[in-house]
Amino acid sequence: MASEKQLIARTGRKFPLRSSAGLRVGIGDDAAVVRPKEGVEWALTTDAFLENVHFLLRVHPPEAVGYKALARATSDLAAMGARPLYFLLSLALPAGRTGKWYDGFLEGMARAARTFGLTLVGGDTTRSTLAGVNLTIIGEIDRGQAVLRSGARPGNLICVSGTLGEAELGLQLLQRRGPKKWKKELLRKHLYPEPRLHLGQWLAKKGRATAMIDISDGLSTDLRHLCESSGVGAKLWAAKIPKVVLPGEAQKIGLDPLRLALDGGDDYELLFTLPKRMQRHLPRAVRGVPITVIGEIIREKRILLVDDAGRTRNLPARGWEPFRE
Amino acid sequence: MASEKQLIARTGRKFPLRSSAGLRVGIGDDAAVVRPKEGVEWALTTDAFLENVHFLLRVHPPEAVGYKALARATSDLAAMGARPLYFLLSLALPAGRTGKWYDGFLEGMARAARTFGLTLVGGDTTRSTLAGVNLTIIGEIDRGQAVLRSGARPGNLICVSGTLGEAELGLQLLQRRGPKKWKKELLRKHLYPEPRLHLGQWLAKKGRATAMIDISDGLSTDLRHLCESSGVGAKLWAAKIPKVVLPGEAQKIGLDPLRLALDGGDDYELLFTLPKRMQRHLPRAVRGVPITVIGEIIREKRILLVDDAGRTRNLPARGWEPFRE
Repeated sequence: MASEKQLIARTGRKFPLRSSAGLRVGIGDDAAVVRPKEGVEWALTTDAFLENVHFLLRVHPPEAVGYKALARATSDLAAMGARPLYFLLSLALPAGRTGKWYDGFLEGMARAARTFGLTLVGGDTTRSTLAGVNLTIIGEIDRGQAVLRSGARPGNLICVSGTLGEAELGLQLLQRRGPKKWKKELLRKHLYPEPRLHLGQWLAKKGRATAMIDISDGLSTDLRHLCESSGVGAKLWAAKIPKVVLPGEAQKIGLDPLRLALDGGDDYELLFTLPKRMQRHLPRAVRGVPITVIGEIIREKRILLVDDAGRTRNLPARGWEPFRE
Repeated sequence: MASEKQLIARTGRKFPLRSSAGLRVGIGDDAAVVRPKEGVEWALTTDAFLENVHFLLRVHPPEAVGYKALARATSDLAAMGARPLYFLLSLALPAGRTGKWYDGFLEGMARAARTFGLTLVGGDTTRSTLAGVNLTIIGEIDRGQAVLRSGARPGNLICVSGTLGEAELGLQLLQRRGPKKWKKELLRKHLYPEPRLHLGQWLAKKGRATAMIDISDGLSTDLRHLCESSGVGAKLWAAKIPKVVLPGEAQKIGLDPLRLALDGGDDYELLFTLPKRMQRHLPRAVRGVPITVIGEIIREKRILLVDDAGRTRNLPARGWEPFRE
């Protein structure tokens, strides 16, 4: 079994320093010390990823646990339009999980850090009966450029990146038959989601988005968060929502692509609003990530769904709610 | 039972915004956005405080859990000489703990935030089978003024603030007979430790300290951390160490004040080193917090203790090690 010191040393080796001119003191002191650039603001976010709440030991490979913990947290920076800089890793581990399991975890997290451009600058290590991590992510953004949840206005277009429901489909498949029975591609979005960092920065920089949030709890729930922050309502067209396509082997399970797209969590796509006049300037994709207009912001504070037959109904928030029984 | 939204609203109400000119976006968006001042560096630290690892539901009042979680984390800023600014609260709670228990927790944490000058700017909420929090604290410090662990040099004096072993005594008493059987004063240091923020800033600003660490794991362990970072050794004089005084009712238990002071954790006093020439300029106390010279840094990489009879022996690190069986 590893000591705390050995664990910290192994962790540090997996996260070599990137070219971070602003980093003055990294891992190993009481706190990290960094020097902010001038003319920027900092975005700060924190996120827990816990065994038996967010992942299961028997279902989720350690690489995916490490990767996804960092991806989820970093997605909050994407939703502000911020550029990732640093992260802090607070780690709770059972003594028996400090060996091979932790190596896999580190491998996945190190890949995520490289992909997202994040430097590990500090953390905390403790034992626990279940594994859990808490990540704090720090990003920068040019002054006044952060895209908040609160800027949506009536008449704005509602847009979404990528395809919705893929992560929930992956979870449903995994829970039914474990990771080895399905094609990797079907599980990819659930195990290895991609925070839409480039798109978020593009939307912030070009000033196109009036409001933005990442879809972590599910479209029906996160759209409600955005509308409540902005003091508006929304109307979605079911036919326009880019829904997961069920593969043959998954069709028998009886899943509904629209339900998966509306209420499935963990997609980490971006949901954002634009002034209507931007529609003709909007590219169909940014660096390969498709953008789809799925509805519009309305003055009335209700969330409405127009179905394929043209009928309008209230859309309840049925996504992830941690304290629901 | 509270929903996540209700929990976040209750939490936000307990932490009113302070005069934080640099805060642009607080609780409720994907990330907080803050604007760093010019000419400063930022200190970043993260710390977990978990049920059954760091506290026990039946032994520790919820107010003390909330207070101490924030105090422990903030102590890392004190040990750099930084001024507290913002914090992020990541919260894992059993559904049944979201009512009265959480109110007490918030009360204690809000008192700590007011005392330390910290503004809550964001967080995360999730359910869990056991309660746990992770705190990320952000402080600022004038450029180049942070006091690191790595600056101790042979011949430097080793100093400590306050009295050592009081927190461990409190824990031992609590574990024996619960919180209501002892005078509050005996338990205060264990339940409501005081991060030495003013002293840390004073030592950083006046340039007196060559190295500094807070005593969270115990003197014998934290002195080793400091010496390893600095590439030096240390010699302590047992007689000089400001040891806890055992009250009459606690003497029967058979505790040794020297052992409590050397190996007891959770005191959150500051351990720091000074050039020898500073000794005559050193006040006996800073804002009521006593300072004591307890030893000196030596070239040889050993940690030695000189006992009351003048005998010198190796001092093993017997403080807190999370992964020790």
